[in-house]
Amino acid sequence: MAHPSVPVVPALKDELDIVIPTIRNLDFLEQWRPFFQPYHLIIVQDGDPTKTIRVPDGFDYELYNRNDVNRILGPKASCISFKDSACRCFGFLVSKKKYIFTIDDDCFVAKDPSGKDINALAQHINNLLTPSTPFFFNTLYDPYRDGADFVRGYPFSMREGAPTAISHGLWLNIPDYDAPTQLVKPLERNSRYVDAVMTIPKGTLFPMCGMNLGFNRELIGPAMYFGLMGDGQPIGRYDDMWAGWCAKVICDHLGLGVKTGLPYIWHSKASNPFVNLKKEYKGIYWQEDIIPFFQSVSLPRECTTVQKCYVELSKLVAEKLGHVDPYFQKLSEAMVTWIEAWDELNTPSQAAPETKTK
Amino acid sequence: MAHPSVPVVPALKDELDIVIPTIRNLDFLEQWRPFFQPYHLIIVQDGDPTKTIRVPDGFDYELYNRNDVNRILGPKASCISFKDSACRCFGFLVSKKKYIFTIDDDCFVAKDPSGKDINALAQHINNLLTPSTPFFFNTLYDPYRDGADFVRGYPFSMREGAPTAISHGLWLNIPDYDAPTQLVKPLERNSRYVDAVMTIPKGTLFPMCGMNLGFNRELIGPAMYFGLMGDGQPIGRYDDMWAGWCAKVICDHLGLGVKTGLPYIWHSKASNPFVNLKKEYKGIYWQEDIIPFFQSVSLPRECTTVQKCYVELSKLVAEKLGHVDPYFQKLSEAMVTWIEAWDELNTPSQAAPETKTK
Repeated sequence: MAHPSVPVVPALKDELDIVIPTIRNLDFLEQWRPFFQPYHLIIVQDGDPTKTIRVPDGFDYELYNRNDVNRILGPKASCISFKDSACRCFGFLVSKKKYIFTIDDDCFVAKDPSGKDINALAQHINNLLTPSTPFFFNTLYDPYRDGADFVRGYPFSMREGAPTAISHGLWLNIPDYDAPTQLVKPLERNSRYVDAVMTIPKGTLFPMCGMNLGFNRELIGPAMYFGLMGDGQPIGRYDDMWAGWCAKVICDHLGLGVKTGLPYIWHSKASNPFVNLKKEYKGIYWQEDIIPFFQSVSLPRECTTVQKCYVELSKLVAEKLGHVDPYFQKLSEAMVTWIEAWDELNTPSQAAPETKTK
Repeated sequence: MAHPSVPVVPALKDELDIVIPTIRNLDFLEQWRPFFQPYHLIIVQDGDPTKTIRVPDGFDYELYNRNDVNRILGPKASCISFKDSACRCFGFLVSKKKYIFTIDDDCFVAKDPSGKDINALAQHINNLLTPSTPFFFNTLYDPYRDGADFVRGYPFSMREGAPTAISHGLWLNIPDYDAPTQLVKPLERNSRYVDAVMTIPKGTLFPMCGMNLGFNRELIGPAMYFGLMGDGQPIGRYDDMWAGWCAKVICDHLGLGVKTGLPYIWHSKASNPFVNLKKEYKGIYWQEDIIPFFQSVSLPRECTTVQKCYVELSKLVAEKLGHVDPYFQKLSEAMVTWIEAWDELNTPSQAAPETKTK
């Protein structure tokens, strides 16, 4: 079933879900068929739940619309955004797998410089299965890649690296620019294929884009909350950024790694910069406070799990960002609701017998 | 005189020196002629000062051997290493230019993937003349490059970046590995051309290699001391590492940027791993203490110049690394001597009249 030249990593076939937020028919999957068909898809239908989303034949999937979100989460459904791709994190919540790959429905298969189709999923899996190097910079990039290693001067005690929690992929063609940059450079296209995977060092924040993203759900899942965006909220297009800032701070605290670089996908079309500007403008303003906040966050030693870190972070958001806008109070509460929902749907296996006796 | 397809940046022709440490005839310059000939060379002859080093015709250069070093620095010559490429920093000391490019004599012109000769010097100049982004990570690498920009979520207030102090170039063919890695992977060659320049984030250390290195002497020159290595010293091959750790900590303190990536040079042959092991083994052991030391160094606010930072760092080296080996006490003293020599040879211009009246 898989493309003959691209072996599926068999061990992960039953350990990875592909999460796709969408409002339309998923014809884009045809191009991904050789790579995605062996995997299970979780489709999160945004917008009108009465609309039928067409999924090409032969894919194994489950689909959730807003009615499903409300039914499954009850009052806790308030933490899941509506009419914004932030709704994708509902898919992370209901997955039972160890790994997640999430992709936007306007992203297609890119080609490497030799003209060969890039199996983005295989590269994410490779990134996630090899360690990261957050504690010291390696000038030849990922030292675990074929033909590379740690360079002279890299401390030997640090060469084991750290478990990789997140694999952030990039985009050829339409770059992930904000609305002002889109407006200023409407014709700019990314045609530079940078053949590198690298670890974002400990203590350094980055802008995480949700278009082409893999992560280890067991290691960092509860931090992958995409916030309150879209319908009824004062901002949009900061869902993935929010998740990235929270997740990076928590990865740093827990000694986990974040990689960025390969794989590329082909981002087919730019979203409307005028619409984007309306969604983004408060975020553009607020991020001037949000970034220094995250840069100075220090989580206490007692926070030994992602959930504990996240709840602690929610308190700090209310305390330190509440003055920026009342929105952050609401977001802080939603962060707690998210963790409650996560724990409800992801009961640790040792608690299972107790649940049965109810 | 310059290669027709590679324009010399005219503004820098009189502002940049090329520093080359060597023990042999500089035939390697023939290949660099189209790129280097417009510039002034400072050749630091290591080893036997009675030996004559042949420099190809047509190059503008000054050459210093050990007798010159002793004559110019007097007792302070003790801070300049002998029989180790660490002697190159003498060239930084006697230069009067704003920019330095330093290269090893076994490094040749590399080709980009299209087969075109890479003008390493032009790329370093470009790196040094454009800002760095040490305060936040840009996932599309250098945002100042053609066809690139800051991505969504990059705070606008940080888009001016920081002045670039250091441009660290890489190597195709023979990678810069330590002796143990050379021994384990004798046949490994670096053939991956990564088309990227990136800033090493604030707070992150990196292994700086002196083979292919540019820097702004006015911004960071006094921190570019290559330590005590080689003849009479217990270690070698840690000269550039030492300079890199010191310089990075000072760049972070002073708000300066460090870039790594392009340009590549072609590193022609691996040095003898058995000889290297002998030079390195104490360094390999000591760096397990050195790295945590540099990672935790905090310079006081009063250190507002590179010299002040460096002298402060020398005190901390004696205080915090003295227990590792008596060598660090000696190194600490040499660091102070280096700064004295720097200040002696680089009297600020406003002091010039006073000097004349003596």
